[in-house]
Amino acid sequence: MIPVLEIFGPTIQGEGAVIGKKTMFVRTAGCDFRCSWCDSSFTWDGSQKHLIQRMTAEEVYNELNKLAPNNFNHVTISGGNPALIKSLDSLVRLLKIQHIEIAVETQGTVFHSWLNEVDDLTISPKPRSSGMNQSLEQLDQFINSTKAVKRRSLKVVVFDEDDIEDALIYHKRYPDIPFYIQVGNPFLNESVENHRDYLLSRYEWLIESVMNDERFLNVHILPQLHTILWSNKQKV
Amino acid sequence: MIPVLEIFGPTIQGEGAVIGKKTMFVRTAGCDFRCSWCDSSFTWDGSQKHLIQRMTAEEVYNELNKLAPNNFNHVTISGGNPALIKSLDSLVRLLKIQHIEIAVETQGTVFHSWLNEVDDLTISPKPRSSGMNQSLEQLDQFINSTKAVKRRSLKVVVFDEDDIEDALIYHKRYPDIPFYIQVGNPFLNESVENHRDYLLSRYEWLIESVMNDERFLNVHILPQLHTILWSNKQKV
Repeated sequence: MIPVLEIFGPTIQGEGAVIGKKTMFVRTAGCDFRCSWCDSSFTWDGSQKHLIQRMTAEEVYNELNKLAPNNFNHVTISGGNPALIKSLDSLVRLLKIQHIEIAVETQGTVFHSWLNEVDDLTISPKPRSSGMNQSLEQLDQFINSTKAVKRRSLKVVVFDEDDIEDALIYHKRYPDIPFYIQVGNPFLNESVENHRDYLLSRYEWLIESVMNDERFLNVHILPQLHTILWSNKQKV
Repeated sequence: MIPVLEIFGPTIQGEGAVIGKKTMFVRTAGCDFRCSWCDSSFTWDGSQKHLIQRMTAEEVYNELNKLAPNNFNHVTISGGNPALIKSLDSLVRLLKIQHIEIAVETQGTVFHSWLNEVDDLTISPKPRSSGMNQSLEQLDQFINSTKAVKRRSLKVVVFDEDDIEDALIYHKRYPDIPFYIQVGNPFLNESVENHRDYLLSRYEWLIESVMNDERFLNVHILPQLHTILWSNKQKV
């Protein structure tokens, strides 16, 4: 059974290599990290534990079809860390049979073979501001294990100058994987005044920093479009 | 000689399939279209005619290096319609020798063989709001001629519901080419009040329209990030 917290869509993927894509979201519960600035901490902090549903792949697929009949061909599996969940192999298999493309986002700590069936794999190792201690050896292993994935990208969320240095470590370690730097969102309450303008001013800061830094060349710098549009609203 | 209106960067590519990418821009003068809402009409309306420089490929390359020494590996050639300019073959060749990736944007009316050397080719046929009469036969020919390009995408700028129907015609005609719908910017003056919020509200409208339309599946919906950040400022 798959521990599911949210199924919603169709909406846009708001970030990373698949930014702007029309997709459905399946958000699983549970994470091996506790990032200080996690924007989905309800997946692991117990606050929405009562909302977790244990579902079969067929039940998830039926729910997607109920939400968007004949209106999706791309599903994003996010978390938490969905890579913790071995039973997602059944959902991935079912979606593949239906010719539905699959995106997954994970920090690259745990590997299951179903990850190699994914079309868009975003690997998002954490910078120091997260408070997490990302093991580079573990990440090496994960990167090695997922070589067969159709499209892989690295995405690092950045809050400050120290984080930019950490992003650089990841970029240099895996120079052949398309690299995305994303501006962090420090305000996680439901309603924040001037949130949009604040996020865009931080995005400007990040662009300027990376543009003036010749150590970054083959790189994308992006905001979270859904947060700019809808602030911290869940299920969009 | 290449007729050049602007060389600037490094900055981000603000739109389309390469959105967020760190890149340099070379903007050429001249266009075979006169789109009613063109955001670079200074390339063809004569208003900046006195600023056009006729440059060799080496001169363009030297200028890029002066602006961003050791700080770029991606160049976006935009216009106007750069595909009109046969002499861009020399610049494309020179950049390839230097292992610099090249993006080009064109409406798909005119083909030159150098287009097949480009890494990221954005083909942007126009919807009816442009006032242009895009020939589908000409576009078919262009699409056929550019099959060898590494990464191709289609991008249609949309202002209203009629434009969405035109976007659909292009999407259905070339279903295998990654498809991007971009929200149009109707306010082209240097300074517009609440421009950011207006553009984002139109982006929301476009997302909602496309999300509820099952005729669009394999599609990306994006804003222009540079316009959201910097409104209509030139050279950013």
